[in-house]
Amino acid sequence: MQYKQVIEQVFNQVKDVPVYGKLATYIPELAKIDATKFGVHFRTNKGFEGGQGDFEEKFSIQSIAKVYGLLMAYQEVGSELWKRVDVEPSGTSYNSLILLELENGIPRNPFINAGAIVIADVLVSVLDHPEEQFIEFVRQICGNQTLDYDLQIAKSEKEVANRNYSLIHLMKSQGNIRNDIERVMDFYCTLCSICMTCAELTESFSVFSNGGIHPRTGKMVIKANTCKRMNAIMQLCGFYDEAGEFAYRVGLPGKSGVGGGIVAVQPGVYSICVWSPLLNKKGNSTKGMLFLEEFTSLLQESIF
Amino acid sequence: MQYKQVIEQVFNQVKDVPVYGKLATYIPELAKIDATKFGVHFRTNKGFEGGQGDFEEKFSIQSIAKVYGLLMAYQEVGSELWKRVDVEPSGTSYNSLILLELENGIPRNPFINAGAIVIADVLVSVLDHPEEQFIEFVRQICGNQTLDYDLQIAKSEKEVANRNYSLIHLMKSQGNIRNDIERVMDFYCTLCSICMTCAELTESFSVFSNGGIHPRTGKMVIKANTCKRMNAIMQLCGFYDEAGEFAYRVGLPGKSGVGGGIVAVQPGVYSICVWSPLLNKKGNSTKGMLFLEEFTSLLQESIF
Amino acid sequence: MQYKQVIEQVFNQVKDVPVYGKLATYIPELAKIDATKFGVHFRTNKGFEGGQGDFEEKFSIQSIAKVYGLLMAYQEVGSELWKRVDVEPSGTSYNSLILLELENGIPRNPFINAGAIVIADVLVSVLDHPEEQFIEFVRQICGNQTLDYDLQIAKSEKEVANRNYSLIHLMKSQGNIRNDIERVMDFYCTLCSICMTCAELTESFSVFSNGGIHPRTGKMVIKANTCKRMNAIMQLCGFYDEAGEFAYRVGLPGKSGVGGGIVAVQPGVYSICVWSPLLNKKGNSTKGMLFLEEFTSLLQESIF
Amino acid sequence: MQYKQVIEQVFNQVKDVPVYGKLATYIPELAKIDATKFGVHFRTNKGFEGGQGDFEEKFSIQSIAKVYGLLMAYQEVGSELWKRVDVEPSGTSYNSLILLELENGIPRNPFINAGAIVIADVLVSVLDHPEEQFIEFVRQICGNQTLDYDLQIAKSEKEVANRNYSLIHLMKSQGNIRNDIERVMDFYCTLCSICMTCAELTESFSVFSNGGIHPRTGKMVIKANTCKRMNAIMQLCGFYDEAGEFAYRVGLPGKSGVGGGIVAVQPGVYSICVWSPLLNKKGNSTKGMLFLEEFTSLLQESIF
Repeated sequence: MQYKQVIEQVFNQVKDVPVYGKLATYIPELAKIDATKFGVHFRTNKGFEGGQGDFEEKFSIQSIAKVYGLLMAYQEVGSELWKRVDVEPSGTSYNSLILLELENGIPRNPFINAGAIVIADVLVSVLDHPEEQFIEFVRQICGNQTLDYDLQIAKSEKEVANRNYSLIHLMKSQGNIRNDIERVMDFYCTLCSICMTCAELTESFSVFSNGGIHPRTGKMVIKANTCKRMNAIMQLCGFYDEAGEFAYRVGLPGKSGVGGGIVAVQPGVYSICVWSPLLNKKGNSTKGMLFLEEFTSLLQESIF
Repeated sequence: MQYKQVIEQVFNQVKDVPVYGKLATYIPELAKIDATKFGVHFRTNKGFEGGQGDFEEKFSIQSIAKVYGLLMAYQEVGSELWKRVDVEPSGTSYNSLILLELENGIPRNPFINAGAIVIADVLVSVLDHPEEQFIEFVRQICGNQTLDYDLQIAKSEKEVANRNYSLIHLMKSQGNIRNDIERVMDFYCTLCSICMTCAELTESFSVFSNGGIHPRTGKMVIKANTCKRMNAIMQLCGFYDEAGEFAYRVGLPGKSGVGGGIVAVQPGVYSICVWSPLLNKKGNSTKGMLFLEEFTSLLQESIF
Repeated sequence: MQYKQVIEQVFNQVKDVPVYGKLATYIPELAKIDATKFGVHFRTNKGFEGGQGDFEEKFSIQSIAKVYGLLMAYQEVGSELWKRVDVEPSGTSYNSLILLELENGIPRNPFINAGAIVIADVLVSVLDHPEEQFIEFVRQICGNQTLDYDLQIAKSEKEVANRNYSLIHLMKSQGNIRNDIERVMDFYCTLCSICMTCAELTESFSVFSNGGIHPRTGKMVIKANTCKRMNAIMQLCGFYDEAGEFAYRVGLPGKSGVGGGIVAVQPGVYSICVWSPLLNKKGNSTKGMLFLEEFTSLLQESIF
Repeated sequence: MQYKQVIEQVFNQVKDVPVYGKLATYIPELAKIDATKFGVHFRTNKGFEGGQGDFEEKFSIQSIAKVYGLLMAYQEVGSELWKRVDVEPSGTSYNSLILLELENGIPRNPFINAGAIVIADVLVSVLDHPEEQFIEFVRQICGNQTLDYDLQIAKSEKEVANRNYSLIHLMKSQGNIRNDIERVMDFYCTLCSICMTCAELTESFSVFSNGGIHPRTGKMVIKANTCKRMNAIMQLCGFYDEAGEFAYRVGLPGKSGVGGGIVAVQPGVYSICVWSPLLNKKGNSTKGMLFLEEFTSLLQESIF
């Protein structure tokens, strides 16, 4: 069966399955989203692409942006980065303070909130104009100059960011935050507020599926070695404390966000993005997980 | 460069690197091993194979046997298994009781000790003669009728198994052990006492690299779908709380044992085994990790 | 108001209050007890005594016996004891393994199960015939040669002692158990199986209310200094993770058991014992707590 | 031996004992204190008083002020207070976030930092001018209109208060902080900045030793029942995670502060205060602990 058919078939099969889950209501702006939105976009390294449903509608990518943050920080400071954040699965819920306290302020990985805040702190240290330079960096990876933050969402998120403030203050007391807390939090919330469509996400993640080379432009955007490492970290840490479940059921490196997006890659072959706002208890899109499980089962391709 | 050359080159490069680490002295029989042993064996799905150093010497595979245990239990009871053990990375040291207590006796995954003990309990429930049937199962996967337990090691391990007794009693009190504790512990320690060479390990793991089909016999040993799932669990949980580090540096699904063995697979391509008894703090072979990192770097192949 | 009146009044007031709670059903023999039993006994240093309800009926004192165990171990080995068990409140439920794992096998205090098991291990080390010598020790403190174990209960408890086996194996692996595990567990379960009446308990605890001197015989049973220390440990650690609640509401050093007994002392003045088998969530007698709160409120006496 | 002699003897005995310990250097202003300061003051309910060393020198009482804070909050809102803070010993270090996360933002007791911050939040809610009214409240208890905050210390503390900010943000996210975070932190840091002498502290704590009646004025300052409860909480929770050690060695309700002060009471008899700035690992004055242990041993009086 061809990709096009597989996507259509699984989309139609999953579309009307009633799913349990709830919106990320703790961020007021995200609570307003239409819960029935459902979009899928798929893109091979060889140039095939196809979308279904709301794949051309912008949504808040939230934690998916942490992949770009990590990539930029790693390119800026190299393996020095691993002195300040580890690459191990978290083992506990995505905003837990427990491990942080036991492990002296070194977050388990760059995708839990604590880790992404450290990444933000690193970028604030090395960039002259973090917000401008970061969005420019994302635009280049995507090959899309129209991408931007939604500052309304950034503001909304910062207002309710007590858990994240708790994390950053704890890490500051443990010596792992170098800059002013408000400055870092401003950048962190802005970074997470990028809005993109499923199609834009597959385009930007096609550099990860294609060994660092943007398939459309043929330009080497990241080094092959870096690309592999990003994929490894996404595989192990990309789905909060559901990383094992995702590997078991789907078997692709990827990253989810509380806006309901999931983007994943089959290295060497394709990138795929699903968007459906209702989240399961672990904070991942319920229908997104279901779609990807059915999709990879039918396709009989995974990295394993 | 060809596989043969890569292996030779990396073997020679790593052979005399002084490594920090210590033997698994807590098991008296393992403490007797010559710490300088170093063997490597490599086997592609297409039939190439090559070894270096002590690759034909038997060693205690220890936790690597948990992969066979999981496979057998999954084939016996199917996805019912996941009611009694999860598939998430552990996030803490391999013998920790903390998560077990917080999570009502459901071990994080089948490769931490608690999880492997539950697997042993499942097999004791469903098999008439667990020891005999299990070794026969392993022999079939390996295509090697000479494989056997080292009962001296099993006995040695059981005598010092207080941590494991603590785990099994805790899970018994939480309702997740169904059989007599001594019976399960006997089987668990026996299961971990299998001795194999690097070459035997790559042969048995070639079913995982080859989608469930034994490359030499062409026989379907496990279903393709099961094979992928085993690889996914090895990727996420195969290296205790160093799973992320291994994925980042090596990028292959695999499993290590405190006997100093590490076996890994590149799905679709090859299986590889390294043996060097000195362990790092996380319980993985120091030189084994180093070899695999250099090997995959030079080969420029990984699942990512 | 006189003691006699206070006791009668509070007894009648509390007797028919419906209380929530449940029997310690995890020990089969304890699950058979009549849940409506209710007895109180009170005894001043000056010789007044009075009882209400089922105060002359024997019941399983369970953890109250840990006070005698601690006392005997302390008299045998002195402050060396504190190298193996601490004197801090536990902060978590009475059978938690978490702190034990984090704190290298040194139990928080001698009254949580882990601590009492260490005490049992110490006594097994220093006594030639632990069971015989321990019950003789208790008989002397009580001035009552008829006291004895209920071996039926000891056996019943040992059969379901998985949590305690988990604790002792963990501590064995951490180096804090010196003797054979079965030997220590036999003694521990026997120690906890003593049966006494409320009146016998106030008599034995009157040495703690009277500075170490048995009020009836005038004999110095324990040193004044030791007596104070036992009272201090009972105050801080005698009620599992409800020690603060008990101090706040009742304000006396004491000890409870899952048989439903609570015994407490007002140093210099009196000892009191209440028995009612239904337990609250923390494992303390619901009606016993209520009685003592009302009693000390009406009496307007506490150590504070 | 008379009180006067006992105090002199123990003071001289302890004065030149070299003690291990360090200043509370994390608060810059406290790091400037002369580490050799040593003062003691003692005051009986019957009117005897005596001091040694630097007992008339002001020092930062820090956490001792939490006793006044708790008392004021309890008098304002009564037992409603216990819905927002518990009265159990903490079981872990005084600034741990772990229990707070596990226990849904209800601090273990009012004397750990998290609990005292909740108390501050309660007072900000019920008082019109928290700072003014609180210092006035303390002045009344002490019978001393000259007492005041050291705003330099308050400012110094707030600047380095990342751990406390982490706690308050966590509790805010858990719904247990009602007011603006900066407002509460301002008040909390101010509250802890009160400076007093040993003699002033024994005077204010004599209401706790005397059942709520100020011994000098004969005025009922707090209700007898409230007094007992404050003493009970001080006994169980007054010394961070060294409460058991203090009860065992000293046997009096009390409270310590990182300024090096310890104040304690023998209910019905006396209050005592020791000041020596070097702290042990648990955050309590090393020499203060030693003095009180020797003092109560020689006096042979304790609540037990």
